[in-house]
Amino acid sequence: MTLVEHRPPARERSAAPQADIDIATTRPGTPGGIFMRQFWHALYRSQDLPAGHAKPIRVMSEDYTLFRGQSGQAAVIDNRCPHRGAPMHLGWIEDDTIRCVYHGWKFDCAGQCVEQPAEEAGFARKVQIRTYPTREHLGLIFGYFGEGEPPPFPHFPHRTGEGVIQVWNVEHVPCNYLQSFENSMDEVHVAFTHQPGGSHAKLSADLPIITAEETDWGMLRFGTRKTGKVRQTLHYAPNLTRVIVPPLTGMDGVGGWTEIYFSFTPVDDENHLWLITSHVAVAGKDAEAYRAKRAEYDRSVAAARPVMDVVHDIWAGKLRFADITHPDLAIVQDIAVQAGQGRIEDRERERLGRSDAGIILWRKILARELRAIAEGRPAKRWKTPPADVVPTLGF
Amino acid sequence: MTLVEHRPPARERSAAPQADIDIATTRPGTPGGIFMRQFWHALYRSQDLPAGHAKPIRVMSEDYTLFRGQSGQAAVIDNRCPHRGAPMHLGWIEDDTIRCVYHGWKFDCAGQCVEQPAEEAGFARKVQIRTYPTREHLGLIFGYFGEGEPPPFPHFPHRTGEGVIQVWNVEHVPCNYLQSFENSMDEVHVAFTHQPGGSHAKLSADLPIITAEETDWGMLRFGTRKTGKVRQTLHYAPNLTRVIVPPLTGMDGVGGWTEIYFSFTPVDDENHLWLITSHVAVAGKDAEAYRAKRAEYDRSVAAARPVMDVVHDIWAGKLRFADITHPDLAIVQDIAVQAGQGRIEDRERERLGRSDAGIILWRKILARELRAIAEGRPAKRWKTPPADVVPTLGF
Amino acid sequence: MTLVEHRPPARERSAAPQADIDIATTRPGTPGGIFMRQFWHALYRSQDLPAGHAKPIRVMSEDYTLFRGQSGQAAVIDNRCPHRGAPMHLGWIEDDTIRCVYHGWKFDCAGQCVEQPAEEAGFARKVQIRTYPTREHLGLIFGYFGEGEPPPFPHFPHRTGEGVIQVWNVEHVPCNYLQSFENSMDEVHVAFTHQPGGSHAKLSADLPIITAEETDWGMLRFGTRKTGKVRQTLHYAPNLTRVIVPPLTGMDGVGGWTEIYFSFTPVDDENHLWLITSHVAVAGKDAEAYRAKRAEYDRSVAAARPVMDVVHDIWAGKLRFADITHPDLAIVQDIAVQAGQGRIEDRERERLGRSDAGIILWRKILARELRAIAEGRPAKRWKTPPADVVPTLGF
Repeated sequence: MTLVEHRPPARERSAAPQADIDIATTRPGTPGGIFMRQFWHALYRSQDLPAGHAKPIRVMSEDYTLFRGQSGQAAVIDNRCPHRGAPMHLGWIEDDTIRCVYHGWKFDCAGQCVEQPAEEAGFARKVQIRTYPTREHLGLIFGYFGEGEPPPFPHFPHRTGEGVIQVWNVEHVPCNYLQSFENSMDEVHVAFTHQPGGSHAKLSADLPIITAEETDWGMLRFGTRKTGKVRQTLHYAPNLTRVIVPPLTGMDGVGGWTEIYFSFTPVDDENHLWLITSHVAVAGKDAEAYRAKRAEYDRSVAAARPVMDVVHDIWAGKLRFADITHPDLAIVQDIAVQAGQGRIEDRERERLGRSDAGIILWRKILARELRAIAEGRPAKRWKTPPADVVPTLGF
Repeated sequence: MTLVEHRPPARERSAAPQADIDIATTRPGTPGGIFMRQFWHALYRSQDLPAGHAKPIRVMSEDYTLFRGQSGQAAVIDNRCPHRGAPMHLGWIEDDTIRCVYHGWKFDCAGQCVEQPAEEAGFARKVQIRTYPTREHLGLIFGYFGEGEPPPFPHFPHRTGEGVIQVWNVEHVPCNYLQSFENSMDEVHVAFTHQPGGSHAKLSADLPIITAEETDWGMLRFGTRKTGKVRQTLHYAPNLTRVIVPPLTGMDGVGGWTEIYFSFTPVDDENHLWLITSHVAVAGKDAEAYRAKRAEYDRSVAAARPVMDVVHDIWAGKLRFADITHPDLAIVQDIAVQAGQGRIEDRERERLGRSDAGIILWRKILARELRAIAEGRPAKRWKTPPADVVPTLGF
Repeated sequence: MTLVEHRPPARERSAAPQADIDIATTRPGTPGGIFMRQFWHALYRSQDLPAGHAKPIRVMSEDYTLFRGQSGQAAVIDNRCPHRGAPMHLGWIEDDTIRCVYHGWKFDCAGQCVEQPAEEAGFARKVQIRTYPTREHLGLIFGYFGEGEPPPFPHFPHRTGEGVIQVWNVEHVPCNYLQSFENSMDEVHVAFTHQPGGSHAKLSADLPIITAEETDWGMLRFGTRKTGKVRQTLHYAPNLTRVIVPPLTGMDGVGGWTEIYFSFTPVDDENHLWLITSHVAVAGKDAEAYRAKRAEYDRSVAAARPVMDVVHDIWAGKLRFADITHPDLAIVQDIAVQAGQGRIEDRERERLGRSDAGIILWRKILARELRAIAEGRPAKRWKTPPADVVPTLGF
């Protein structure tokens, strides 16, 4: 019924170099979707998928069934039975095959239909369900959703030597994955988001100067302190950050500073999974102490309010950010701020500065690659990261 | 911001004969909506509507108020008062009329406005609310939403002779009605959806061969076993199945095999009601025993988790299909699978087989009728089903 | 897949004079949005915003942060930090400034960025956040969101002399603001919505005849009883009603008839806030008695089911309108009926009558003003209401 709808004048916009291309989307068929499908993606925590179980997963706006056969092999297939569209994860596992709950069609691990109890012989061999390469590494299940052969696996090196591999609870974050990946390039936020309150003098006392450079495998980022010390962090393309972090609140320093791997897997354009594995350099009695302390910590997390409930209270103004108490405090803080930017951050309204150097470089790389894909030009051939480039603490 | 959005290539599609027409929609004004409005539809359980009560209902994407006058007469009217749009079911019943809660406009059972307390005399007679033919049969209230005279009523015959008429809880199913109607033509699913687990040999041991034929009143469907025995099931156009079913879990065989009537009434294109009446051939002491057992069963259902809560746990992968326990187990299983196909099943991706013969025939009939309506050609004149064609058990 | 979608024939429509313009929308850039932004709007209850706290608010489809500085000054700013879009209400207050939680950018009360701990000197002065005029009056915080200078403040007079200023709980109503503002012009609904049940004779016994006239500042409305007594109610443009109302249920007559101010502030086109302030003419011991009784009443409201839970039960047909019990009964009744008209009332289907005279006049005024804005013609210059035009009880 509107006669005329006047649009308000656009606010001042930064001259974003990626304004002509959507660097945040991973929907199938888009440049971003094609780019992201060149890589392995973390999907699930290995320990959460026992043999004989099937789970629904959603990755980059598409639905799949993830299951583990009786042999222990994990597999990813399309989520719908080709017959009548029933969800495959409702089916049951027989050896390493899966049988649909609706009419018993059975598919082997290559996706071939091998049994159709109520159909004529010969029909089954004409029917396949699509399957996707699946691997496990550092306590996580990874999948590959692109065309052709997947890249080598494991697709990233990790610290070797004694230690405990700790896989954290998987967080479902209600915003685009790029916001959280960008946040992992933003060392400066730590002094504010994770230590809210305090004066300018205190806050600006020891902030790092951020610089970054592109590599064969992603981006190397540096945080240089006034002391001249440099912290080096690795951002493996397209969504994995390897960094050394301080001991977690609640762990009371047990385990010390740990090397940690953050994966930000797109569920769809407005949601992602945050999957975290850490390598804790402890052995023997120290490892026992670490595990005991971590079990205690996990119990306190399980007993606490769900992370997103607290985040919603903060967003609604019912709870002040500075008043949050939660065993997973840093995770609550990060999600409140990053998903608080909106489901998909409006990057055209931003005013970026010196401290955003890592983010700015990564966006340029993304925009360049997506534009090449959109225009049918050759894109970068990403390499498996070398084992000898490692994150450093720097102070 | 997307530069170019490449669509992925379409997957292989079956040559669905109804690809040019939407056989699932019942929205007003569509061929499907016009087709479906030629028939009576089950709306509500009679026992749930006491005299003097009004309820909101939604049928085929339109909202109505259903009420029962003090005389016991049920009526259906538009849901909004013509004056200022207040919901009529908030009003109160006076004899067999209903008065709007906003300004007291009163409408008689023919829809004529007969009182407007704050308006000038003479205005009321210019105002009507639309009414819809309403009848009751077998413990259910039916309504007619088409143009012109409704078909004869009762619109389907039922078993006569002694027995108990049992009307089940009404289920609200979050998918298109046609999925559940089709499932009622799919005798083979019983061996899988309702008995999950088991080997190919066991599952395929005694599956029926399905055949079907069109009739004056709908479709007659046959399930032929290896023994040569034939189970005959009636599908009354457009959404009512009459079948003989085994005793319910939890009833411990009390009442034996019963004749049952399934109605699948569209709420809108993505939801339907599943209304069930059964005729249990018991009399005297057996009827008493049946009623007592059924009351016990109803109490266990009332105490159980809501059906849709269990279904959502299954869909989310929190509960395995084979691990479900619920007094309404078969209903949970059916809804999980049928609504699990999606809000509206994507029929163009299916790979139908021999066991889908009933579904294939019904879709052809639907597509033919809807195409005739779309093109303004004469459509089939459906007849009231004869009393002498009845379902048989067949084994 | 639909071949042809026939639209049902339009029902008979009243010849609404505003059919060519959307009088209900307040979205930015629309004629309605431009019109509404000429006025102050009630935003929050003063007592709910302590010094040092920030809250998210949404007004006319736009998001803001409302905060109170340590000096006690309330302020409204855009909700997103210009840097990277974090919600400003997650930040913390320092004196009368606010600092963003993401990277510590600090803004003074004029919106100037005054600190950026991690950025180079000189960048801050180039960055502003938009601020909006903010004032307090009668226990409420008001904001101005239009272009240029705001109108004089306070923008409406109020009863002076001894008394208690009582600010009610703020209700979030899930429908367009205009429905509730129109309801406040509809004196007749009281006999039905707030006294459901009863015969025509009883209901129509003493209904007022409604008349209305436009003024410099809004609309003056009269309800004339058979006795000749006239109740006069003031509707201050664009969404504020000043009226004398009977003692509240639950207050047992303590405080007597009070002068009350209803503000209906659009949250977006489908939601609004209902903010109520009353001036209760009591002093000394009577004021104490009033406050004690009101505290008791507030406790009973706090202990009762949330208003919207009850409304949803009524809408779903689980609870009959006449059976509602709730300490805020009148509010439950009003919201059930007014939001029951739909998120945005379909005014083209209405059949207005004599009793809708106030609504009809206000819609004409709105349509005239919005049409002038749409066509770039001069619009009315609204005046601050005079102190000597006051509401009267009239009986």
